[in-house]
Amino acid sequence: MSNPVSAPSNTAMSTATFFHAGCPVCVSAERQVVDALDAARYRIEVVHLGEQKARVAEAERLGVTSVPALVIDGLPFHINFGASLADLR
Amino acid sequence: MSNPVSAPSNTAMSTATFFHAGCPVCVSAERQVVDALDAARYRIEVVHLGEQKARVAEAERLGVTSVPALVIDGLPFHINFGASLADLR
Repeated sequence: MSNPVSAPSNTAMSTATFFHAGCPVCVSAERQVVDALDAARYRIEVVHLGEQKARVAEAERLGVTSVPALVIDGLPFHINFGASLADLR
Repeated sequence: MSNPVSAPSNTAMSTATFFHAGCPVCVSAERQVVDALDAARYRIEVVHLGEQKARVAEAERLGVTSVPALVIDGLPFHINFGASLADLR
């Protein structure tokens, strides 16, 4: 019997979808969260709901009630970055 | 000249600190976020502020205003998991 120990199947990849609405202050900050995810284990997708309105229903179905939100394997996490007032000057 | 291209220094590791207060429903859900981080690039620490009250001031200094929160390289992200009512029955 052969046991493939070092060739994980792509079908076993987890998914992480980051939904946002394009707020410029938040996008750069929250990309930091996406960048911190393990791309070797997660298929990562970033969805701008302002530009892809057809996917709003999908986000709602996943339990997203506000953006930005990160959905990991179907579980929604709502992320709030407290934008620094300094960034808004 | 030698150019070390494949031996990143450990001193270049980024840090990701997850602060929480022990809510059982949320801890399991939010560990999913920590588990999704790239441990090869981030030094990941989980801090239970209910048990480590001495670190509350540190969390505040990092900009954490509520828990759970994930601080990536000094930038705080407040995470809200909408706990399912089903999990509370």
